[in-house]
Amino acid sequence: MTKGILVLSEEEIRSCVSINETAYDAVEKGFSYLAQGQVTLPPILRIDVENNNGEVDVKTAYIHGLDSFAIKIAAGFLDNHLLGLPTGSGMMVLVSTITGKPTSILLDNGYLTDVRTGIAGAISAKYFAPEKIEMVGVIGSGAQARYQVRGLRLIRKFSRLMVYGIVPEEVDRYADDISKEFGIEVIKAIDAESVVRQCNIVITTTPSKRPYLRPDWLHEGLHITCMGSDSEEKQEVHEGVFAKVDRIACDKKSQAFRLGELHHAIEAGIISEEAKIIELGDAILNHKLGRQSKKEITICDLTGVGVQDTQIARIAYITAAEQGLGVELG
Amino acid sequence: MTKGILVLSEEEIRSCVSINETAYDAVEKGFSYLAQGQVTLPPILRIDVENNNGEVDVKTAYIHGLDSFAIKIAAGFLDNHLLGLPTGSGMMVLVSTITGKPTSILLDNGYLTDVRTGIAGAISAKYFAPEKIEMVGVIGSGAQARYQVRGLRLIRKFSRLMVYGIVPEEVDRYADDISKEFGIEVIKAIDAESVVRQCNIVITTTPSKRPYLRPDWLHEGLHITCMGSDSEEKQEVHEGVFAKVDRIACDKKSQAFRLGELHHAIEAGIISEEAKIIELGDAILNHKLGRQSKKEITICDLTGVGVQDTQIARIAYITAAEQGLGVELG
Repeated sequence: MTKGILVLSEEEIRSCVSINETAYDAVEKGFSYLAQGQVTLPPILRIDVENNNGEVDVKTAYIHGLDSFAIKIAAGFLDNHLLGLPTGSGMMVLVSTITGKPTSILLDNGYLTDVRTGIAGAISAKYFAPEKIEMVGVIGSGAQARYQVRGLRLIRKFSRLMVYGIVPEEVDRYADDISKEFGIEVIKAIDAESVVRQCNIVITTTPSKRPYLRPDWLHEGLHITCMGSDSEEKQEVHEGVFAKVDRIACDKKSQAFRLGELHHAIEAGIISEEAKIIELGDAILNHKLGRQSKKEITICDLTGVGVQDTQIARIAYITAAEQGLGVELG
Repeated sequence: MTKGILVLSEEEIRSCVSINETAYDAVEKGFSYLAQGQVTLPPILRIDVENNNGEVDVKTAYIHGLDSFAIKIAAGFLDNHLLGLPTGSGMMVLVSTITGKPTSILLDNGYLTDVRTGIAGAISAKYFAPEKIEMVGVIGSGAQARYQVRGLRLIRKFSRLMVYGIVPEEVDRYADDISKEFGIEVIKAIDAESVVRQCNIVITTTPSKRPYLRPDWLHEGLHITCMGSDSEEKQEVHEGVFAKVDRIACDKKSQAFRLGELHHAIEAGIISEEAKIIELGDAILNHKLGRQSKKEITICDLTGVGVQDTQIARIAYITAAEQGLGVELG
């Protein structure tokens, strides 16, 4: 659409993309293309910066037939709070599949990742969560604890939410924000166990390196979406949980087996790589792979896949170009 | 140095970086850090766009202790000439190793890659080419046929150059350009064989997928730098050449064994991965690994390493920031 490189600011991107049906449909389509073998998805390129407690990941996915794909640079530096900065940051580059030239640079500071991750949670819930949600459970009180709820809101109704987090002031702020944003009752739990035992959908959103969600807390009809674990050393869910659930899903097996909760469950010998594990794209294409009864216990492990980035970045670029936003360079 | 993201244009970058001693020293240091184990160098991330005859590579290298590293997006689309565009394009992002945030975006359209590749050729020549160059041989007449000569000029004197290429008009233009730029005699060869037989340093710079440089053309005192082959299917040099040389070098074994000329020689069983193959960084640290006599036949296989990109991008950014160039965004 543009001849140079369209550089978009976070503010411009926020005005073009949010958690809504358009974004949901695009990300869901991305997963279905992946399941149909229409995507080139190289392994994640990762650089650890150990002395600063940081890591930088590069993710990409080329969806065959589209005229551009995203290359995303995403960083997580855990000591950034000491500098008054958020842990995460990031940007994306859209590359033309016609010429190889960069089409757009999206200086979103991780916003698009927040959106597409919230939507992956929504897809997980659409196919695996029970139809009727009595109370939503959220563990963690950071950015994704918010985006996951925004995503879920697209596809399920709920009027109560229970949250547990380890920083009381953050949890207070979260409860205030969420009750205002959605007009729902928010209950602050005294521990993670209460959340799991009392809710029929639980979303884990922490960067924990020690599993805390225990198998003896599970109950009939529960669905768990785990989105916190996206690198080898992170883990929120005890491996034993995977022995007690009826249905296991993930965004992409090749990634979840290396990075996600499934990685630990496989390493512990609880499940094998050959076990029946449903990728989101498979469930999208064949709904019978989703939840089949009210009683099932289900779990979905999200690690974040490049198709989500490509689809969401394309919405940002196309919308911004139509509206004449951005600065054209190069 | 800047708080936002400093976006630099190709023109600004060209005004800050060229093939000179500063750039040479930085790239040479990059290779020595690599040899000393002070670099995190993930495998290249590659996306093929087969239906448009293109590929996109992402390269990176974190040199421990530096406050930033480069992530480079480089594309080669062989049908671009049909659109009146150059085959190659690219850009780099400098990422802070303190916070993980992007520090600078370098919209160099591949210029920095041209420079750092020319310098890698110069390093290869410094340690492996004979001291006295009677005539430089160049195969190919594109951008690297020029940058390689510029690099070589930094470290060897020469007054004659012989070139062979398959597009006569390009070769004519090349001969004119080079004789003007360096004030030297340029001879157009009738074939690649003449170049190899008559020169004591030969640089292969083509994107050929069929090897053309034959072992029976080799002669005492010859050094060959192969820079064209940077992906599995590319090959300029017959595998048999590797059986006839006295000394084999490369930029980085792990890459050359997958992508370079060495990849084909190993696959053909001519040499093994355990053979004595000298990485540039090893020769920089220990000159005794370089050429040891006038008579030796030597070869160096270049695939392009992320340390080169990080070092050259840092020069561009630091110089531009000092001079107040660029647009600050984000």
